[in-house]
Amino acid sequence: MGSIRNIPDIVVGRLPIYLRALDRLILERREYTSSHELGERLGISSAQIRKDLSHFGEFGKQGTGYNVAYLFDQIRQILHVDREWPMAVIGAGDLGRALVHYRGFVPRGFRVVCVFDTDPERIGEEIAGLKVQPMTELDETISTHRVQVAMISVPLEAAQAVANQLVEAGVKAILNYAPITIAVPESVQVQYIDPVVHLQHMTFYLK
Amino acid sequence: MGSIRNIPDIVVGRLPIYLRALDRLILERREYTSSHELGERLGISSAQIRKDLSHFGEFGKQGTGYNVAYLFDQIRQILHVDREWPMAVIGAGDLGRALVHYRGFVPRGFRVVCVFDTDPERIGEEIAGLKVQPMTELDETISTHRVQVAMISVPLEAAQAVANQLVEAGVKAILNYAPITIAVPESVQVQYIDPVVHLQHMTFYLK
Repeated sequence: MGSIRNIPDIVVGRLPIYLRALDRLILERREYTSSHELGERLGISSAQIRKDLSHFGEFGKQGTGYNVAYLFDQIRQILHVDREWPMAVIGAGDLGRALVHYRGFVPRGFRVVCVFDTDPERIGEEIAGLKVQPMTELDETISTHRVQVAMISVPLEAAQAVANQLVEAGVKAILNYAPITIAVPESVQVQYIDPVVHLQHMTFYLK
Repeated sequence: MGSIRNIPDIVVGRLPIYLRALDRLILERREYTSSHELGERLGISSAQIRKDLSHFGEFGKQGTGYNVAYLFDQIRQILHVDREWPMAVIGAGDLGRALVHYRGFVPRGFRVVCVFDTDPERIGEEIAGLKVQPMTELDETISTHRVQVAMISVPLEAAQAVANQLVEAGVKAILNYAPITIAVPESVQVQYIDPVVHLQHMTFYLK
């Protein structure tokens, strides 16, 4: 298996998509698949898939293709989701609540274990069995639960300050739903979800 | 201005990020900016920004840089968000409700005008002033409102069928929140939002 340094980030970014497709194949009780079939399902060329996977080892056999369960396990290990990552949600508005309720995290390696807000009206409220906590408890809770992953669902004006507090508390990966680019130390990962960015990308092609 | 065919899709995908940063600069009452400053704020190299923008024309001047308001207007026109796109939301669960409530669409060129669900308990309910409609009304409502853009927030098992119905009704751009790749005709755009894909991308780098 190659070292992290050698793997282009864009390749890493496609592995979760492959994992999702393999999960689907497992549900369909399929034992083998091919780069061709995966490519068809994902709209990616089979050559690209073979090249991406070759960064991590030899997974397929000429003729029989990939063993679905084996490749699934290998990619889970590569992405470190063969375990459960505890997560914090910051911001208990509509989106934050949807994130706390979302059932798609646990089967794929993540569990929301705490949720925070600044609004006194929200603090103490229960969402999916979790009590909304004040931001003053963030440091201790994150340290107790060994949380390294957090999702920011606060208004954009508050996002940078929240990110700073998360980094300070030891969080290493942030998924930011606030529509603003945030600055973090190089040792911290950030990814963004902004639906308008996707929508505007598509309207470029519309009349 | 270049033709659509000549612009790499990856460049198009960065324009909404530039637009978001310019919006921010306008809020800060800034009149001029530079590729260097934009780059710093976005974590993108200034050379990349200059190259991306050069696909569309000459926006900056040596010495004074970019006029913020002018560049903002130009990119809005390029992305076709100098107007308001009516949108449909399919699926009125937690996420669908959050999307209907989200106030970040209108200032950036989009407005949710209708919301659909199959659940009789949800149909007729009001979310942010919109009545949840049954799927049987989808075709007519989409045609009446001339909806070309839709967001799918249904369980993954239902996503492909919903996409088919949307395409049939004339929708040209789909933002799919269901964690599954969907098949659509080439004339239809699809973008995906799946938080777990981003989370798993980040945990690759964590221990």
